[in-house]
Amino acid sequence: MRCSKTSKKLSGITGSLSDSYSDGFGVNYTNRDNLPRRSEVVSVTEKLLELLFPGFDQRFRGEVDTEELVGICFDELASQICRAFHRSGNSACCCDDGARCEEAAFMLLEQLPAIREMLKEDVKAAYVGDPAATSCDEVILSYPGLKAIAIQRLAHVLYEAKIPFIPRMMTEYAHSATGIDIHPGATIGKGFFIDHGTGVVIGETAVLGEKVRIYQGVTLGAVSFPKDACGALIKGQKRHPTIGNNVIIYSGASVLGDIMIGDNSVIGGNVWLTESLPAGTKITAAMPENRKKFNGQPK
Amino acid sequence: MRCSKTSKKLSGITGSLSDSYSDGFGVNYTNRDNLPRRSEVVSVTEKLLELLFPGFDQRFRGEVDTEELVGICFDELASQICRAFHRSGNSACCCDDGARCEEAAFMLLEQLPAIREMLKEDVKAAYVGDPAATSCDEVILSYPGLKAIAIQRLAHVLYEAKIPFIPRMMTEYAHSATGIDIHPGATIGKGFFIDHGTGVVIGETAVLGEKVRIYQGVTLGAVSFPKDACGALIKGQKRHPTIGNNVIIYSGASVLGDIMIGDNSVIGGNVWLTESLPAGTKITAAMPENRKKFNGQPK
Amino acid sequence: MRCSKTSKKLSGITGSLSDSYSDGFGVNYTNRDNLPRRSEVVSVTEKLLELLFPGFDQRFRGEVDTEELVGICFDELASQICRAFHRSGNSACCCDDGARCEEAAFMLLEQLPAIREMLKEDVKAAYVGDPAATSCDEVILSYPGLKAIAIQRLAHVLYEAKIPFIPRMMTEYAHSATGIDIHPGATIGKGFFIDHGTGVVIGETAVLGEKVRIYQGVTLGAVSFPKDACGALIKGQKRHPTIGNNVIIYSGASVLGDIMIGDNSVIGGNVWLTESLPAGTKITAAMPENRKKFNGQPK
Repeated sequence: MRCSKTSKKLSGITGSLSDSYSDGFGVNYTNRDNLPRRSEVVSVTEKLLELLFPGFDQRFRGEVDTEELVGICFDELASQICRAFHRSGNSACCCDDGARCEEAAFMLLEQLPAIREMLKEDVKAAYVGDPAATSCDEVILSYPGLKAIAIQRLAHVLYEAKIPFIPRMMTEYAHSATGIDIHPGATIGKGFFIDHGTGVVIGETAVLGEKVRIYQGVTLGAVSFPKDACGALIKGQKRHPTIGNNVIIYSGASVLGDIMIGDNSVIGGNVWLTESLPAGTKITAAMPENRKKFNGQPK
Repeated sequence: MRCSKTSKKLSGITGSLSDSYSDGFGVNYTNRDNLPRRSEVVSVTEKLLELLFPGFDQRFRGEVDTEELVGICFDELASQICRAFHRSGNSACCCDDGARCEEAAFMLLEQLPAIREMLKEDVKAAYVGDPAATSCDEVILSYPGLKAIAIQRLAHVLYEAKIPFIPRMMTEYAHSATGIDIHPGATIGKGFFIDHGTGVVIGETAVLGEKVRIYQGVTLGAVSFPKDACGALIKGQKRHPTIGNNVIIYSGASVLGDIMIGDNSVIGGNVWLTESLPAGTKITAAMPENRKKFNGQPK
Repeated sequence: MRCSKTSKKLSGITGSLSDSYSDGFGVNYTNRDNLPRRSEVVSVTEKLLELLFPGFDQRFRGEVDTEELVGICFDELASQICRAFHRSGNSACCCDDGARCEEAAFMLLEQLPAIREMLKEDVKAAYVGDPAATSCDEVILSYPGLKAIAIQRLAHVLYEAKIPFIPRMMTEYAHSATGIDIHPGATIGKGFFIDHGTGVVIGETAVLGEKVRIYQGVTLGAVSFPKDACGALIKGQKRHPTIGNNVIIYSGASVLGDIMIGDNSVIGGNVWLTESLPAGTKITAAMPENRKKFNGQPK
């Protein structure tokens, strides 16, 4: 039991907070129009990964077989998609019967075999491209780059279907777990390998061909943000690079703007690139000269 | 049941470990003077975030209303603060009645409405500053930069009140979840936006004005660490930058030392800066020339 | 209850997925040859950390004393090691009696006191090397660099013993939690301190002396990957740097290839280094000139 003085102070704080909630900004605790729940979006994302590589997580296996797990994913996806539509005030959603939400959930589930085929190529690209990789199983079990691209491939399907909130919640879960930030809008071909990966950023309108390989700290970003007549940013314009097939981009490189990098190009570490490149280009930064002193004396 | 040989080997290992504990270094399992618990510091941090943006987490809602959640936060904060004071041997703490610990817990809770007002400006800055942001709800639900600054604003209150351990435990929780490392000591104005954020480092004595925007990989760090006569580092001195209002710092830039960056300045990607700048300065790195070869031939 | 139309569509998706599983690639849900479980590898890793710094986690304390926790770690390690051997088809493993798995688990547990001694030096190095560190307890409670090196020191013992899968699963858990990617193969002397740490990459064959200090974004990586006659990467060759004692490497530096950095060297921020250095060398990058404009006018 708290003493009356303590209780009074706590009530005062509660009152101030409740006043602060009255503008409705950043408030979601009413009984309707709830947003998707982060913990449930994460949970269904993990279950979808288990359907893509069955048995690798095992938290969801035991008595549950594939058919049951498909059913659980369907129900959970449809439920979160309904929340997303409701909140965003999407008039096309008729959630009395939940038809459009179920349709969107089906659409993602139907893509799983095709996504699995792409991910197989991603796994093989990691095994072939990394001298430290000892098996494809190891890549699936422990490589953060694979987790990031697997989740992005799922999120991209929902992004293309214009489901609000959930695609970005999925890729931000991957970002938190891996340090790799791929926007759900990015279009990425098969055989994609990100090594190490911390600090990688791939923007919303980036397009990557097949068999692209990138390293930690690479940004495929924007250089400028066009504004409308009122000075507000214009959303949705193509503002990130298009990368050809078989391109390698080494650590720390920044490739910026709506430019084209031709097939088979190699972009060296720390390169800063804002112009297009024809196919087959190898580009390296003229590294700044290192200044050395030996025991306090310049050589 | 283990066989006697196995049991004997395990007992030997236990004995060696116990011997190793006898110096008391890195040991916390006695019944008194316990340190704050990581899992409980994380748990109360999440509850405080739920008070700032009610309904966005929802793990703590259900039968619990705002008043109850305030009470739970109060109890949990006071409990961890008592642990922190005890362990650090703070003589000013009289935990028989827990008065000072409760006072510190009250102080943070009383700040919540003001922190919420600052965070509203942070959310709007993200929405306005990022072409990929589709709504303020999306920013609150999924942007790591918002999570990092929300937790830092909480931790900063405890840091200013000289609570040991807990502020840093809170910001390191944010660092782990987001890749954004903001020391609880940093002073940061409202309308702050960190985009992408992985690799951002903001040091203990950094001071940022209002409406500052920074990108992934930016360091606001120190260049040198002054030492005392014995060669030990002097703790607590101002050694990080002061950043004015409306400053933008692009990805990978390093701004180092106790320097002043004037209002409305723009610091380009990968800039390395160790000197002060007057207001309104635009600074870009002379990017190293890129060396290109086309199909093996330099152009 | 689902309607028959919905059930039929879900059954169709299940059928397509099951077909996709039939090649066995990325499939682990059979009743034998299971891979180690991620959640259990993480769980035993956390328990081993609790044995190294008793009482700092406390989730595993309560009724459990050191002897019991040693026993639990032994059982869990042996169980996951058996899975790892089975799956990799290691013919030397005779898991009918589990002898080799238990032996490997013993070996790691026997190393714990020695690892604890190394970690004490790591903690002290952090306290001495960071002006923001207020106590050794704070370092243990909250510094990500310490978590990363503690887990890597555990994983390295299993790597040296050629246990498949588990060492990398352990260091990738650390990578996910800290943004610090140290391969279990790296050999690292005592008194190692990583400050901030996000984006650090240390490769499989790197060798670091004592009292090395590194900052966020440092890569100790490879420059080229030798291939065999078939064009496949050769695995396991020494391809990462050897770093002497008392070397400091500042943020964003890349030290690449099988080179030697002599004792007491200092490598500046953003240095790009692919050649060996004699002892006592101080090296800084000639930073690219910054181009300034004041209110739109170049100065």
